[in-house]
Amino acid sequence: MNLPGIVSLLTDFGHDDEYVGVMKAVILGYSPNARIVDICHNIGPQDVYSAARMLEASYPFFPEGTVHLVVVDPGVGTTRNIIIAETDQHIFIAPDNGILTAILQSSKLGKCYALPDMAATVASSTFHGRDIMAPAAGKILAGTPISTLGDPFDPEHCVVLPPSPVQITDTEITGEIIAIDHFGNIATSIKAEHLRIPHIDVEIEIGGVVISGIVKAYADVEKSAMAALIDSRGNLEIAMNQGNAAKHLGSKRGDSVVLRSASRHSPE
Amino acid sequence: MNLPGIVSLLTDFGHDDEYVGVMKAVILGYSPNARIVDICHNIGPQDVYSAARMLEASYPFFPEGTVHLVVVDPGVGTTRNIIIAETDQHIFIAPDNGILTAILQSSKLGKCYALPDMAATVASSTFHGRDIMAPAAGKILAGTPISTLGDPFDPEHCVVLPPSPVQITDTEITGEIIAIDHFGNIATSIKAEHLRIPHIDVEIEIGGVVISGIVKAYADVEKSAMAALIDSRGNLEIAMNQGNAAKHLGSKRGDSVVLRSASRHSPE
Amino acid sequence: MNLPGIVSLLTDFGHDDEYVGVMKAVILGYSPNARIVDICHNIGPQDVYSAARMLEASYPFFPEGTVHLVVVDPGVGTTRNIIIAETDQHIFIAPDNGILTAILQSSKLGKCYALPDMAATVASSTFHGRDIMAPAAGKILAGTPISTLGDPFDPEHCVVLPPSPVQITDTEITGEIIAIDHFGNIATSIKAEHLRIPHIDVEIEIGGVVISGIVKAYADVEKSAMAALIDSRGNLEIAMNQGNAAKHLGSKRGDSVVLRSASRHSPE
Repeated sequence: MNLPGIVSLLTDFGHDDEYVGVMKAVILGYSPNARIVDICHNIGPQDVYSAARMLEASYPFFPEGTVHLVVVDPGVGTTRNIIIAETDQHIFIAPDNGILTAILQSSKLGKCYALPDMAATVASSTFHGRDIMAPAAGKILAGTPISTLGDPFDPEHCVVLPPSPVQITDTEITGEIIAIDHFGNIATSIKAEHLRIPHIDVEIEIGGVVISGIVKAYADVEKSAMAALIDSRGNLEIAMNQGNAAKHLGSKRGDSVVLRSASRHSPE
Repeated sequence: MNLPGIVSLLTDFGHDDEYVGVMKAVILGYSPNARIVDICHNIGPQDVYSAARMLEASYPFFPEGTVHLVVVDPGVGTTRNIIIAETDQHIFIAPDNGILTAILQSSKLGKCYALPDMAATVASSTFHGRDIMAPAAGKILAGTPISTLGDPFDPEHCVVLPPSPVQITDTEITGEIIAIDHFGNIATSIKAEHLRIPHIDVEIEIGGVVISGIVKAYADVEKSAMAALIDSRGNLEIAMNQGNAAKHLGSKRGDSVVLRSASRHSPE
Repeated sequence: MNLPGIVSLLTDFGHDDEYVGVMKAVILGYSPNARIVDICHNIGPQDVYSAARMLEASYPFFPEGTVHLVVVDPGVGTTRNIIIAETDQHIFIAPDNGILTAILQSSKLGKCYALPDMAATVASSTFHGRDIMAPAAGKILAGTPISTLGDPFDPEHCVVLPPSPVQITDTEITGEIIAIDHFGNIATSIKAEHLRIPHIDVEIEIGGVVISGIVKAYADVEKSAMAALIDSRGNLEIAMNQGNAAKHLGSKRGDSVVLRSASRHSPE
């Protein structure tokens, strides 16, 4: 794998402290020409599930050889492993807490390593992003072989998260809200692949309202009308054209969404 | 025009999602050495007017050959054009919705192109920033001639926004609040050029209070006192020294501001 | 000192405006290959103390030759100096208002310069970050000797902030809350060096609760239990495992914290 010197960062560190900047400083200390791209730092504190979902939605868009550093780490300072996983095109560094679920379950998964326990040798027990994971990323960019940074680790022993719940019957598909974005657009666990053909004949029930049909674009419905569509990550999304669907519906993560045929036909 | 490999980004995507990071990933896929500068991602959702104003205030400070990517796109997925406009020193990529008003009306405007309709060939109908505009920026940085990316488009046919309202009479200038910044400083539509000479003899009425004279710096008035001054963008600004003027006055965008002579002299 | 072309930025500009992006644009105009790292832009408006503390916690992690640009500047437009200070490994540009206290008091402090008064020659009296400090950073990266940018200035004449209060008696150490981070973790003015040996036998009183012992990691206590530990900056920190300690205790900056022996032994 060719390494173009690109690192992505995904954390729950927020923007109020120096934590993200310090991790970048450490990476640049090892590899002064690194280009570091923020995916997001507003993951809810310790929300491993959201980080896993966002990583899965993001990493395929990065160039081959990108090193993805994911630091949402409720177990920092404990004996949880820090792992490095490779696919055919990407390298991932993260605590072993389920964040890498999509990568570990990918058919493209290559080797997996666990970093040795460095807790006793690093400066802090609260910031392994700075003291262990950023140095690992910097060293990889600088050309250190990954095999020298950790010991081979069986990915079967890594923590994985349960899949987002989707129940499919002959007459309906039941999913749940898995994320709400900055625009108030509602992502659901129902994926495009669950629908054989997106169909004008379906209806979606969410938060007590029923939306008819799946459209292509927000502006396919009137301003301030609700729309169901397939989002840029491939999930069924509920949105309000030029409005905030989640606020309008009072939606929150985990709420139920049901898709069924609006006619006699099944949605599939 | 020499291209130093610099891209600016201005969007309404916020910081809670992976959208900005994914656009950067796509750009780096085409041009791995790109330096990408965030202008702002906290433009209000679909607030084309604020994005246009901020772009106008920002782009002249970027080096020659910067590619400016502006994605505030209420019409995403519809047939609205995506345009590429050149001035003598800068390149702009944006939906044709008025965001580029200052550029389209500039005497420096060069060629203008419309991208072909790619809606049918790209992955999503909700994220043309990722699927159409970021690739265009990446290709330009990588050396693709702009003329091969789109068809010449008459800038006269582009959407432009109406100018910020300013009424000038013999005795007063009436404008309105066009923006409130992070510090609570209030930008108005009255520009330095509307005042022949900034003058100690003027008074400004805003939100029921009257401010005497235009000063040079915040600290020219007492701590917590109101000040009128010319801001870093060349607009009349109302501020509170080491305080939040907008919160103090209860100001909001669109509110009126009047400048008049405090003596017999006209403000000009 | 070798300059790798890295600039750090620390400001109170927030993320709602174009101010940070424009400073980066100006730096890139002088030095198109600069790598610019955001430390933080959410310092409270004019909160010089927090900026000083965050700079002290951050700069040592940056590579040798990094130029640190710190713009929290309540005196912008007045005659306060803008200074450039060098240590053996770093360069700092900031208003002379105490932000650089830790650097000015460091044994590594080298030369110190004051920029000439450019107020009359620059575009604005409200944005010296853009018009004076960013150009200075860009010129230094581009190879301009610092000695040609300003006049030697006696660091004894620079503004310094008083130290964070800590009172040490035979039986207890009294400090105060100096910062609350994004996670609600509470940093105190009590430093690891004040404790001869971190000891299971101490107790910490804060906000009406008493915490027994200093642990190594958040997860050393039960989920939602309070923990006292030494944070990644070397300060005594009060945290809640996977929770928000500051919200739980209703803490704010300046609140008192007392550390004492839980047994007959003194904490030291």
